[in-house]
Amino acid sequence: MAVYTDVSFEDLEKLLTGYDIGNPRSFKGIAEGVENSNFHLQTDRGGYILTLYEKRVSAEDLPFFLGLMEHLATRGIACPQPVRNKAGKNWIELNGRPAALLTFLDGVSLRRPEVPHCIQAGEALAKLHAAGAGFPLSRPNALSVNGWKKLASDTQAKADTVQTGLAQLIQSTLKEMEDWPSGLPAGVIHADLFPDNVLFMGGQISGLIDFYFACNDALAYDIAIMLNAWCFEQDGSYNITKGKSFLSAYRQQRELTPKEVEALPILARGAALRFLLTRLYDWLNPDPAALVRPKDPRDYVKRLRFHRNVRLASEYGL
Amino acid sequence: MAVYTDVSFEDLEKLLTGYDIGNPRSFKGIAEGVENSNFHLQTDRGGYILTLYEKRVSAEDLPFFLGLMEHLATRGIACPQPVRNKAGKNWIELNGRPAALLTFLDGVSLRRPEVPHCIQAGEALAKLHAAGAGFPLSRPNALSVNGWKKLASDTQAKADTVQTGLAQLIQSTLKEMEDWPSGLPAGVIHADLFPDNVLFMGGQISGLIDFYFACNDALAYDIAIMLNAWCFEQDGSYNITKGKSFLSAYRQQRELTPKEVEALPILARGAALRFLLTRLYDWLNPDPAALVRPKDPRDYVKRLRFHRNVRLASEYGL
Repeated sequence: MAVYTDVSFEDLEKLLTGYDIGNPRSFKGIAEGVENSNFHLQTDRGGYILTLYEKRVSAEDLPFFLGLMEHLATRGIACPQPVRNKAGKNWIELNGRPAALLTFLDGVSLRRPEVPHCIQAGEALAKLHAAGAGFPLSRPNALSVNGWKKLASDTQAKADTVQTGLAQLIQSTLKEMEDWPSGLPAGVIHADLFPDNVLFMGGQISGLIDFYFACNDALAYDIAIMLNAWCFEQDGSYNITKGKSFLSAYRQQRELTPKEVEALPILARGAALRFLLTRLYDWLNPDPAALVRPKDPRDYVKRLRFHRNVRLASEYGL
Repeated sequence: MAVYTDVSFEDLEKLLTGYDIGNPRSFKGIAEGVENSNFHLQTDRGGYILTLYEKRVSAEDLPFFLGLMEHLATRGIACPQPVRNKAGKNWIELNGRPAALLTFLDGVSLRRPEVPHCIQAGEALAKLHAAGAGFPLSRPNALSVNGWKKLASDTQAKADTVQTGLAQLIQSTLKEMEDWPSGLPAGVIHADLFPDNVLFMGGQISGLIDFYFACNDALAYDIAIMLNAWCFEQDGSYNITKGKSFLSAYRQQRELTPKEVEALPILARGAALRFLLTRLYDWLNPDPAALVRPKDPRDYVKRLRFHRNVRLASEYGL
């Protein structure tokens, strides 16, 4: 949840003179997303999200993120669309922050997705990967192995205050990452397609949101992230039925190469390490202005320990 | 801003089986209100607010608050309406909290109301007072002089850490409250009709919200609260044009008695003390689970100092 930067109705009113989207009917800060400040705006013409980009999203990346959403929409992906102002710009500055108005998508995020949702999520990811082809801009993945090394070193001293042995677990996993695969089929990945970021309506996916970690990387790494985010139970156990369903739905859209299949265990371990490290960092460095409870990193310790015992992709249900 | 108690979509889905309000289209925690957890729900039939009542609202007061909103609506006041479930109840329990579904009102709160808004606010308050007549339940004002004494004693030791001399200012104001008037025209008051709680659309008031401080007290005390909340500038100076406009609009609906006019300065001083004390308490005792920045009590120190120099109601523009 987050509203880091305050926007008054008077600020909004001034902003809206630059847009052609009708008259405001309601405007409320929303308790969602940990990275940015988000407001729901309803006008007599429709619903919008006003996002102010905070520390983790830099203005220079906005052409990638916003352009990607435009690119994906023309290829049939339901995702928020940046609204261009009267000057043709898809982002502006507001209260000292880069900001964008995006169309609001109906739908709700599930807390505990079931097998039918995992099937739809697998299909949606494969379609997203196909739709990303041809997007002309690129953005490296700042949260890949080198990024993890920095986070590991920044958190090492205090990691064991969260769980005994955690610093050691991180170090030995990082060492395994020396074998991180290269040369896998690559493209634009979402890199954060958690259940929070997939909207359902009436049991069907109605949209994908929050593209602010999107980047160019191995497509199978996106699969590994979603195995972590969608196919574990709350007690930390892996649900292989969900895993099989998710993977098989993906493969009906795009078959995996033998190299991708082989790489799946290390990709899954890396993905668990990535979310463990960012959560651990936020846990150890809570931002008092964030108005957000940091997520418990220990959920990802459990997942990482599971992955460290996996040798073959078949153990995920492939 | 607040979402103290989490409600997942799965919790909501279960809840909705007890109501006849259509299928959910979106559901989001909203960053509004410091007392309760609030969620915006859109269904195919309309907009709703789901409120979970936290520590400051007790279940035994809900028949008063919810019944009042129903009473006011039948008398033409635009305010949220509690939705009754299939069993006819207007509140239920959810995730260990009393909770209610209320209709959503369109409109936006102003941060810096201008004279025309003060005029409308004065008229709306008088109409609210008239509409409250005949409401059969009653609720004493827990935040009147006795409540202030307790807050003053709870904050005394640390008050001067906020501003030198503050403990002394509070004590001497409290002493003046021994002359707190009795026998003024009384009824149901809102007791918190700040600009946050008045919605405007197209320059007109579209609704009044947040009745969770409503109680039975002197009607003129509600006027005093709004003089504090609507008629001061951000630098703490009193804007007598706003005051005159507000008071005159109120009096066009209901003339004040001579006793009310005479009492206005002490009521205004008491109202400033009330908000000073609750803000000071929250400032000194921040709730780490609140996800809310406490409001700065010093805004009300400035107001209180202004009121202590007022001798006659005419100084407010009466």
